[in-house]
Amino acid sequence: MAQQEVQNGGAEKVAAAVSFTAVKPQILVESPKANDAVQFYKAAFGAEEVGRTTHPKRKAEQELPLILSAELKLAGFTFLVSDLSSEDFASPAKSAGSGVVLCLETEDVEAAINKAVAAGAVAEGEVLSGEGACCGERVGKVKDPFGVVWAICAPAKKCDLPEIEGPVV
Amino acid sequence: MAQQEVQNGGAEKVAAAVSFTAVKPQILVESPKANDAVQFYKAAFGAEEVGRTTHPKRKAEQELPLILSAELKLAGFTFLVSDLSSEDFASPAKSAGSGVVLCLETEDVEAAINKAVAAGAVAEGEVLSGEGACCGERVGKVKDPFGVVWAICAPAKKCDLPEIEGPVV
Repeated sequence: MAQQEVQNGGAEKVAAAVSFTAVKPQILVESPKANDAVQFYKAAFGAEEVGRTTHPKRKAEQELPLILSAELKLAGFTFLVSDLSSEDFASPAKSAGSGVVLCLETEDVEAAINKAVAAGAVAEGEVLSGEGACCGERVGKVKDPFGVVWAICAPAKKCDLPEIEGPVV
Repeated sequence: MAQQEVQNGGAEKVAAAVSFTAVKPQILVESPKANDAVQFYKAAFGAEEVGRTTHPKRKAEQELPLILSAELKLAGFTFLVSDLSSEDFASPAKSAGSGVVLCLETEDVEAAINKAVAAGAVAEGEVLSGEGACCGERVGKVKDPFGVVWAICAPAKKCDLPEIEGPVV
């Protein structure tokens, strides 16, 4: 009764009250490579795996169970790594985000890039400084073996661009 | 002297000490639509813009300054929205992450999807429950007007799959 009312006419009212409790990037990789991806993120960035859920139906059928979601922690932030299953996604290209990169903040951009490259990532372009850097003093990019681009950024000392202060009168 | 030593042979030692201070998703949009994207994320998800840096060189040349980075907060999490500039990225398809979606956790998946769709997103597929849901009880997906896929998830009550406990002997 009340349920039907909500379905028919209450969507906007309900929508106004929507609240979110978390934002987590989720990396989708071609099945069954999510486990490889988890190992890569541990080696390249020092991520820690704190949880994993696998597809219960698949466990008995094949060697590597599909990973619904592996939860990784890095610098206190959470990201997820999942196997793309044909059930969830008709086409990776269709369902995957087309313009999302993951920014990692660090004090030593070059060392972080070197470590990622040693683990199997490919450096993209030069390390940029100053005006060319997104929200940072220096930024470089690597693409990991699973197609994800990581921006390695040194955080700017101040978020605002410096302004010349007028003389105190 | 010591610098040369580090460059030649010390990369692995230095890399072992790399530490990160933050992980932030960055959404790259076709220039100059980053401002539109920021407005969309405010309307669709209730994000708040807390900072913006624009490309200083562009300010005088065109009406909309290129956004190097707009910083948005949502549920205490930060994400960035940037105009793709030809200087930074030779090709969006080449540089953008190919398999990253952003998961938003909420108690009311349908209301969140309705609000996002009302703001201009397109629902993708059905809302899935249980086994099909990535790290949540229920999950639906929307693609925003800028090509980013958002997974709208109700967080699972427990992270681990339930197990049947044996009788206490």
